[in-house]
Amino acid sequence: MARKPGSRSDITGPRIRAAARRLFARHGFAAVSMRQIAAEVGVQAGALYLYTPDKETMLVDLLRDHMDELIKAWDAAEPPAGPVERLDSFVRFHIAFNLDHADAVFLSYMELRNLGPENFAVIEGLRRDYENRLESILKAGQGGGFFAVPDTKLATMAIIAMLNGVNTWYREGGRLGRAAVGDIYWDMVRKAVAV
Amino acid sequence: MARKPGSRSDITGPRIRAAARRLFARHGFAAVSMRQIAAEVGVQAGALYLYTPDKETMLVDLLRDHMDELIKAWDAAEPPAGPVERLDSFVRFHIAFNLDHADAVFLSYMELRNLGPENFAVIEGLRRDYENRLESILKAGQGGGFFAVPDTKLATMAIIAMLNGVNTWYREGGRLGRAAVGDIYWDMVRKAVAV
Repeated sequence: MARKPGSRSDITGPRIRAAARRLFARHGFAAVSMRQIAAEVGVQAGALYLYTPDKETMLVDLLRDHMDELIKAWDAAEPPAGPVERLDSFVRFHIAFNLDHADAVFLSYMELRNLGPENFAVIEGLRRDYENRLESILKAGQGGGFFAVPDTKLATMAIIAMLNGVNTWYREGGRLGRAAVGDIYWDMVRKAVAV
Repeated sequence: MARKPGSRSDITGPRIRAAARRLFARHGFAAVSMRQIAAEVGVQAGALYLYTPDKETMLVDLLRDHMDELIKAWDAAEPPAGPVERLDSFVRFHIAFNLDHADAVFLSYMELRNLGPENFAVIEGLRRDYENRLESILKAGQGGGFFAVPDTKLATMAIIAMLNGVNTWYREGGRLGRAAVGDIYWDMVRKAVAV
């Protein structure tokens, strides 16, 4: 079968992204050269520049794609309408998504400092969009008398930080499975915001 | 007055550490050279090697000193004996200590991957020692019927992650002062572990 025009870059693009994500996560953005990424993919360094103008663009693309995917996945999950059930869904969704995207999560916390102001603002904006989804659950629950948090903004930050922490210690096949971890974190979050 | 022997290195040592901490926190360990640290201090690069054998040793010394200082400060705080009051003290202590040592905290989460296995084990061990102090409060409260957490180990990790998150958004002179932030986080932690 004849190769379609563009098929080469269609294949190489995702491979370049995966290689960059893996190398940045393992060694840190600053320690990885375009040459190393090219070697990992098995292409010439020059070929990378057909795909991206520079290393920072590669990083911001990875971080933006990660946030886009996170937000789309949550919006597509169609969580229940009631604030308590919705918060329950959010806790389990966030833990599972983070564990399934450990390298991207790691990068998005470790490498923010390597973005220039404009790129930084883009990622911060997406992060804010995601946090607002959680805060609106807390506000709805607060308004409905289901939750009593002194400050919905700080509760949002506290819950996300708590859930992000799972990636630092969770190991597949360890003492607790994902469902058990979800149950335990939901128990703590549920009580933390309770009336 | 005659200069005492050793006084030069006594002065330079802390300045080198402070410069390394500042540069590592700002640019990342991998991106900072011994030459840059020397320039920041105002000494020749060779002078740094009188003080430390290499850059990783400098990093592990910074991380170890930070953990030692954290543990000593908590042990010296003589928190109240009752588990509820003790947990309250822990929450406020941890937030305040982290805000007072923001660069060191940032480094100790960002640069762990740059340690070799032996140095990593040292820092992990100290971190465990500190976490155990929190877990023993939770266990005492659990045993005394004050707390009901499904898993004291996970509650320990959850609380520390939640409190560490404060450093990512807190700004002096912002909407909330430290005492208000302490009150709000204590409210959430208190309820999260409550019966």
